[in-house]
Amino acid sequence: MSTNENTPENAANMSTETPRPEARKPRGFQDKRAHLIAAERHLVDKVTQVYAQWGFEGLDTGPFEYVDALGKFLPDTDRPNEGVFALEDDDDQWMALRYDHTAPLARFVAENWNNIPKPFRRYSAGPVYRNEKPGPFRFREFIQCDADAVGAAGPAADAEMIAIASEAMQACGAQVGDYAIRVNTRQLLDGVMQAADVKDPNKRLIVLRALDKMDRLGAEGVSELLGGGRKDESGDFTEGAGLNSASIETLLQFAQAGRDTRSETLNALAAIANQNAVGTQGLEDLSAIHDILNGLGVTDQMATFDPAIVRGLEYYTGPVFEAELLKEFKDEKGRLMRFGSVGGGGRYDDLIARFTGELVPATGFSVGISRLAAVLAAEDEGEQKADGPVVVLALQREHMADYCSIAAQLRAIGVKAEVYLGTSGMKAQMKYANRRNAPAVVIVGNQERESGKVTVKDLVAGAKAAADITDNAEWREARPGQFEATREDFAAKIKAVVEANNA
Amino acid sequence: MSTNENTPENAANMSTETPRPEARKPRGFQDKRAHLIAAERHLVDKVTQVYAQWGFEGLDTGPFEYVDALGKFLPDTDRPNEGVFALEDDDDQWMALRYDHTAPLARFVAENWNNIPKPFRRYSAGPVYRNEKPGPFRFREFIQCDADAVGAAGPAADAEMIAIASEAMQACGAQVGDYAIRVNTRQLLDGVMQAADVKDPNKRLIVLRALDKMDRLGAEGVSELLGGGRKDESGDFTEGAGLNSASIETLLQFAQAGRDTRSETLNALAAIANQNAVGTQGLEDLSAIHDILNGLGVTDQMATFDPAIVRGLEYYTGPVFEAELLKEFKDEKGRLMRFGSVGGGGRYDDLIARFTGELVPATGFSVGISRLAAVLAAEDEGEQKADGPVVVLALQREHMADYCSIAAQLRAIGVKAEVYLGTSGMKAQMKYANRRNAPAVVIVGNQERESGKVTVKDLVAGAKAAADITDNAEWREARPGQFEATREDFAAKIKAVVEANNA
Repeated sequence: MSTNENTPENAANMSTETPRPEARKPRGFQDKRAHLIAAERHLVDKVTQVYAQWGFEGLDTGPFEYVDALGKFLPDTDRPNEGVFALEDDDDQWMALRYDHTAPLARFVAENWNNIPKPFRRYSAGPVYRNEKPGPFRFREFIQCDADAVGAAGPAADAEMIAIASEAMQACGAQVGDYAIRVNTRQLLDGVMQAADVKDPNKRLIVLRALDKMDRLGAEGVSELLGGGRKDESGDFTEGAGLNSASIETLLQFAQAGRDTRSETLNALAAIANQNAVGTQGLEDLSAIHDILNGLGVTDQMATFDPAIVRGLEYYTGPVFEAELLKEFKDEKGRLMRFGSVGGGGRYDDLIARFTGELVPATGFSVGISRLAAVLAAEDEGEQKADGPVVVLALQREHMADYCSIAAQLRAIGVKAEVYLGTSGMKAQMKYANRRNAPAVVIVGNQERESGKVTVKDLVAGAKAAADITDNAEWREARPGQFEATREDFAAKIKAVVEANNA
Repeated sequence: MSTNENTPENAANMSTETPRPEARKPRGFQDKRAHLIAAERHLVDKVTQVYAQWGFEGLDTGPFEYVDALGKFLPDTDRPNEGVFALEDDDDQWMALRYDHTAPLARFVAENWNNIPKPFRRYSAGPVYRNEKPGPFRFREFIQCDADAVGAAGPAADAEMIAIASEAMQACGAQVGDYAIRVNTRQLLDGVMQAADVKDPNKRLIVLRALDKMDRLGAEGVSELLGGGRKDESGDFTEGAGLNSASIETLLQFAQAGRDTRSETLNALAAIANQNAVGTQGLEDLSAIHDILNGLGVTDQMATFDPAIVRGLEYYTGPVFEAELLKEFKDEKGRLMRFGSVGGGGRYDDLIARFTGELVPATGFSVGISRLAAVLAAEDEGEQKADGPVVVLALQREHMADYCSIAAQLRAIGVKAEVYLGTSGMKAQMKYANRRNAPAVVIVGNQERESGKVTVKDLVAGAKAAADITDNAEWREARPGQFEATREDFAAKIKAVVEANNA
């Protein structure tokens, strides 16, 4: 180790003058280790490959937008301008970290309208930030992977998005039957609210929020929320929309019209939703989407129509859809959990108009990579793989140049390898190799140096033999997995060991 | 396009009540298009593969650190706590976006000391943020790709880092001779300042900053900065260190001791730097590094010793090094430019001690990916590739389901394909296909629908023929690159066209 005259002084200053900061991660953010990085990367690659295959092109708009450009739209919520990480730039303009990929896309399209091909099909993969209360599996940074088509009108564009959502789920490893894309449209919701005589904007919000809870509360709970209000298990009371029983009946019948197949749902809805122009428009759109999904080979098992899907109250203007993983998994306490929603999207024709005043039709889909990856990584963590580097032990520090060139010989033939760079003895070095999941270690001590050989310990074979043999003394005698090699052939022999492990 | 009752109202509200925000990108940040994303990704992959090969493991510490944990160290500068993007969290704690990968690493290691293998070898690739004045090629977000070994003492660890830096440059596409890793140590600098009797901390800073400018100002300019001060071309005066001529001579001799080979430089330094214990230590360290570099096959052309390299004044505690691209390139105005420094690193034994009070030896290297990628992408932009999706024209909107399934047939055999989703006519659709770099378009109009065929335009062959043929009328007649295909064989034929283009 190099010495430095200033260093001890600095250290002394630190301990007496300045209080030492506590080493702590900011709340709600993750330190991602190799396993999780690889899982997220894998999913991002798979999903963006699907997007690219459908003609979408990468765009990364970066972390910040001006706050006025982000606007009041937060998808999946109806809170204006909440939940962002904002700061003031040195020219007194407020910027915020992007909370999704869509708002920056709208800004980009408006800013570059004359220089981009239209329709503009772009995908985006990267972190987004929400300034929300952190919790288990609720992070304030997470990766989203979006595809959007701007300037794309009509149900074909929406149907494509639904097909892409289904393909993306499969690309992430979900089998047909493990997931569902649930589709609805704002027009059907508007039509049924008109039929139920719900006009007041605040009441409309209460009704939409109530319908959105059909999944969780069932018809009875939703009925209470549409009527006089509902007291939940904790005793908290939620005010209702105060509708009369005829209106409640209309809305419930609508929300429960979902059937196993899209045709059956369309039939069930035909009897309910055809009462006004906007409802009829909604039905026609769903029907056109159905035809195109059939042409694209998207079956009823992949995508269904569900009138109780609401999503982004102030955000979407046409078809909306949600991607749900049906697969169950065990949480850390062994409880069987359902994964739930992992993505969604829909048509948002208003977003560019915020900047330009002109309505530009647009539709998109977004997958939440981080939650998916966290579970994949957790499922995977059980199996320990010897996929680390070969560790060359450093037993005689005066021979570091030799150890370094041994490792270089391994790397030269494509084997990950490193020299132990700490100052501890052999036992700690072996422990280190195990913690790094090393497939093998290379030992050159006095004896090997005299004989011109190297000793190789195959740690996988050694661990296996140790598990098989109960007699400790016998095991020590046998030294399973250990072999000698020459300076000429050790690298090739170790490469064979590594390749056998990976096979 | 779906209609929505609320939409026109909203649009009207926007134009009368709320002023429309201007669509503008925050200053100093980039919108990255596909080309640049791919260039950055390629470099990150190449560099992290080198790091992984040397036994480093991925870690992503995320965007934020608490401000007290970031500390006063900004590498390459000596400004305390400046240049970060900071904001106050809702629990009144100040967080800042990371300005490098090293400060978060120090926090991570201190926080997880008992649960990580030691030495801890990690790499990190991702954006860092500097709140600085933006300029051409100076962005406030850029990608760095770092490898660090924490708990790694001694010159072998530093020599490895230098070898890794050299390999990383080659992995990025630089040939031997196109780059140089320049190496120095803090001990040599401390030694020569002791020999020149520079003791005052402020004077030390002025001297180090002056030596750092040897490259740009030459011996004369540096001499002025070490003495009475220097007036630059614009007339600005920089105060000097006020040293006497003997001290200036000592320092200049030292800073000019760099030679073509490491051995020669060591010899030149031996005559100058051996005047005190710390200088001798520096010489011994460089000499040990030299031996190990030789063992690792790092030649004089790859890594040299340069006493005028300074770097991170308050940051590094031992060997330091800088990776410089020597290759020249032309900027947008055709001027021949030198790329300059693209990375650097060194030993920093103090960083963990900030948290724990214990000195932990550490050394690392960082490549600036964004600048490298920007130039690669610019060099590349000249050649237009037909690497976009095949575009299925949408000439009869009542047949969208058919167009969608034509595109699906192409994707099913691995060909990127999309349906035109806009509302414009054939000419605009062809223009769109060209802007998307489509290799081909598929046309099904009335005629094709009657004959049960599809028309394919091979845009690459068409463009080539157009360039060869001067007679416009003749060209129109011949329709080069255009062919008919059946519903059964069109996909395979288009795949052959795409593969021929890529070959």
